[in-house]
Amino acid sequence: MTEARVEILRRLARRGATPQLQRALKKSRPVDIAAAVGHLAPAEQRLLFQQLPTSSETSEVLFRLSDDDLRSIVRALPFERLVLLLDLMEADDEADVIDRLPEDMREKVLAAIQSEDKRLVEEILAWPEDSAGGIMQPIAFRLNESHTCRDAIAALHEQQEHLENIFYVYVENEAEQLVGVTSLRALLTHPPSTVLRDIMTLDVISVSPLDDQEDVARVASRYDLLAVPVVDENRHLLGIVTIDDVVDVIKEEALEDMMLMAGVGDAPAASSGSVFIAARQRILWLGVTLIGGIGISEVVGLFHGALEKQAVLTGFIPVMLGTGGNVGTQAATVAVRNLALGQDADLSLATMVFREARIGMLLGAAFAVTLGGYTLLRWSDQPLIGLSIGSALFMIVVVAAGVGTLVPLSLHRLGVDPAVATGPFVTSTIDFIAAMVYFTMTTLILGL
Amino acid sequence: MTEARVEILRRLARRGATPQLQRALKKSRPVDIAAAVGHLAPAEQRLLFQQLPTSSETSEVLFRLSDDDLRSIVRALPFERLVLLLDLMEADDEADVIDRLPEDMREKVLAAIQSEDKRLVEEILAWPEDSAGGIMQPIAFRLNESHTCRDAIAALHEQQEHLENIFYVYVENEAEQLVGVTSLRALLTHPPSTVLRDIMTLDVISVSPLDDQEDVARVASRYDLLAVPVVDENRHLLGIVTIDDVVDVIKEEALEDMMLMAGVGDAPAASSGSVFIAARQRILWLGVTLIGGIGISEVVGLFHGALEKQAVLTGFIPVMLGTGGNVGTQAATVAVRNLALGQDADLSLATMVFREARIGMLLGAAFAVTLGGYTLLRWSDQPLIGLSIGSALFMIVVVAAGVGTLVPLSLHRLGVDPAVATGPFVTSTIDFIAAMVYFTMTTLILGL
Repeated sequence: MTEARVEILRRLARRGATPQLQRALKKSRPVDIAAAVGHLAPAEQRLLFQQLPTSSETSEVLFRLSDDDLRSIVRALPFERLVLLLDLMEADDEADVIDRLPEDMREKVLAAIQSEDKRLVEEILAWPEDSAGGIMQPIAFRLNESHTCRDAIAALHEQQEHLENIFYVYVENEAEQLVGVTSLRALLTHPPSTVLRDIMTLDVISVSPLDDQEDVARVASRYDLLAVPVVDENRHLLGIVTIDDVVDVIKEEALEDMMLMAGVGDAPAASSGSVFIAARQRILWLGVTLIGGIGISEVVGLFHGALEKQAVLTGFIPVMLGTGGNVGTQAATVAVRNLALGQDADLSLATMVFREARIGMLLGAAFAVTLGGYTLLRWSDQPLIGLSIGSALFMIVVVAAGVGTLVPLSLHRLGVDPAVATGPFVTSTIDFIAAMVYFTMTTLILGL
Repeated sequence: MTEARVEILRRLARRGATPQLQRALKKSRPVDIAAAVGHLAPAEQRLLFQQLPTSSETSEVLFRLSDDDLRSIVRALPFERLVLLLDLMEADDEADVIDRLPEDMREKVLAAIQSEDKRLVEEILAWPEDSAGGIMQPIAFRLNESHTCRDAIAALHEQQEHLENIFYVYVENEAEQLVGVTSLRALLTHPPSTVLRDIMTLDVISVSPLDDQEDVARVASRYDLLAVPVVDENRHLLGIVTIDDVVDVIKEEALEDMMLMAGVGDAPAASSGSVFIAARQRILWLGVTLIGGIGISEVVGLFHGALEKQAVLTGFIPVMLGTGGNVGTQAATVAVRNLALGQDADLSLATMVFREARIGMLLGAAFAVTLGGYTLLRWSDQPLIGLSIGSALFMIVVVAAGVGTLVPLSLHRLGVDPAVATGPFVTSTIDFIAAMVYFTMTTLILGL
């Protein structure tokens, strides 16, 4: 359904069908218009923007554009119109857009926007990008604890222009410290003369502006909050982080973990970005693989004599290392997931490693029988080959399962993000161990 | 801070310090109490539950317990108390808890809960677990379009017991079809005599009860909705999916992707569960690795003669396959991420594969020079070895980057979840190709 709408806008803009485009735009949501813009050529993008009114909806289109589209659009827009659109945004969105503008425009725009907005935007831009301060809306619906529900509803009428969404009503004491919280609904369902102090919840969950956005998301999701207040060290309310931003953070962080696990860096270059940057982000982990591989080549060299006597062993090097690497990656992935879900927190390291080792034994036994059986049939005149290959595979799978679990759990206890552990690093370590186990066991059993 | 609270509860329950425990429980949030319960022995869990009142907060503790803890607690609770606690829950939470009860208790509990609750719970349980219907709250704040803001606020007072959270006010026509939506705030900021029809937003975004929960989450996050209405084919409002459940779905699905990528199955057995089930979930992908490995052993066998003449080539089989596999996994992970973020939707398959191939060329060149250089120095009397190994590695990295991108993107266009593609399947394919490329190129260059 969404895609159909985007497609209609795209076609109308391509055809330059202005009246139909205007009608279609009126019926479309900003996020869909922004998606359509992403599919258009610069001239078509300009045409589409000319059909949009200078409204808060159009501001949202701007906010929803990808970095590349935003940069090309802002150059095409008349400067006065850009400033008007920015003035219509909420301060957190405005700061986000200004942060993504081309360097040379940023200062010029900051100088031109409304002075009250400017103060708020500069406040947000001053905090680190991934902190609570960097993603908060620097305004909130707040009232003194001595006010009544009636006062609160009246205040709501007055302030309505500034407050897009009201999730909670924050209550402050005389010193303007955050002391309580209540809901819009509570204002409505209590008698109008009730004082806020008497209906507010006292134990307000809040975060500090320098807290990592991931921690803010964790708090919001753990306690099912629609907004998390950000307070300074004196409990003065600085702003709120709203649930829509929390959702974005959760999506971002999940993908970040996935990237870390593949050793791609936590924020890969955009698809349109430089291939040099993308290559640089991936080279570190691959370098680990390369060095590990050189190490393995030396191990193979050590067993050169044995391989000459039993050339068939050479063919099974890849399956030994490949199976070991995959078993280790699976064990590590399960460990990373359980840590992310906060499971297992009360299990000892030994318990968890032992559990994975038992899974490894089952898998190892199944594969040892399969591969051992295959080699027994294939080289039936030399049954010791099948036996040695089966035993080595069993051993490798058990060890890989144990190592794959041990590494992320140990990293976690050391305070390192365990997602980094399931990448090429774990694979290379296990490859090396697997090579040692394979050659040691086969040469021992075969008496080479 | 959270952990400290959990720790206090845990210690007090362990010591059996009843009065202090009661005080601490009164100051704690349900989610933290549930976390503490997870750390206790059965007898301590019972003691803690005896200190809790039969309130909706205690119901939430029950709802927040892990499956294992829930099962042991419900057996220890007096049956009447369990039913009272269930009656205090919202229908969607109640259905969730009942669904997680031991088989033998489920029917008995369903027969005992309040009859109105029972109807709603059975309604939810009738929908698939991962569908919009399966996660919705089967109640919503709804009013006829001819009502005024004053009527709406009066209705709010009457219905307040049944409605825990009110995110939106849904507006229906005479045929009880969902025709519009407005906010609590709009009710407050318009004159009391305003008719809902005049202030409602017409174009309501909704989902069907059989829509996948992932699609519901996508809609909620795309349009920044706090709740998504679920309507049947006649646009009758069945219920709402709220943002807290959307957040849970997003977290679940992200982890599911991670699991799929490692070939562990999309819902791995709990850490406390059977190791047989865990092994079965992982065995499929590993079987692919094993079969691929047998294939590779045959490829190695084909080049047996060449390897006898140049034994040094054997040692580099692992690094060729390992680097190829990791480059492929990285490329595939980036592709999966870009698909998840909805990036690249307008780029052609060829453009994306070509981009990754260019990154592959950069990486390949860097590694070819490194490994080729190393082998040139190590076997300086035979410069062709270094040359052949460097060229083969370059070729493998470029091909791996291309294949790693092509597979998930093709799967996506075929409507298959691309996360399955970065697991052992892609690795095995690339391993096989890498083995072919390695032997073909080295034997050609070395004239074996």
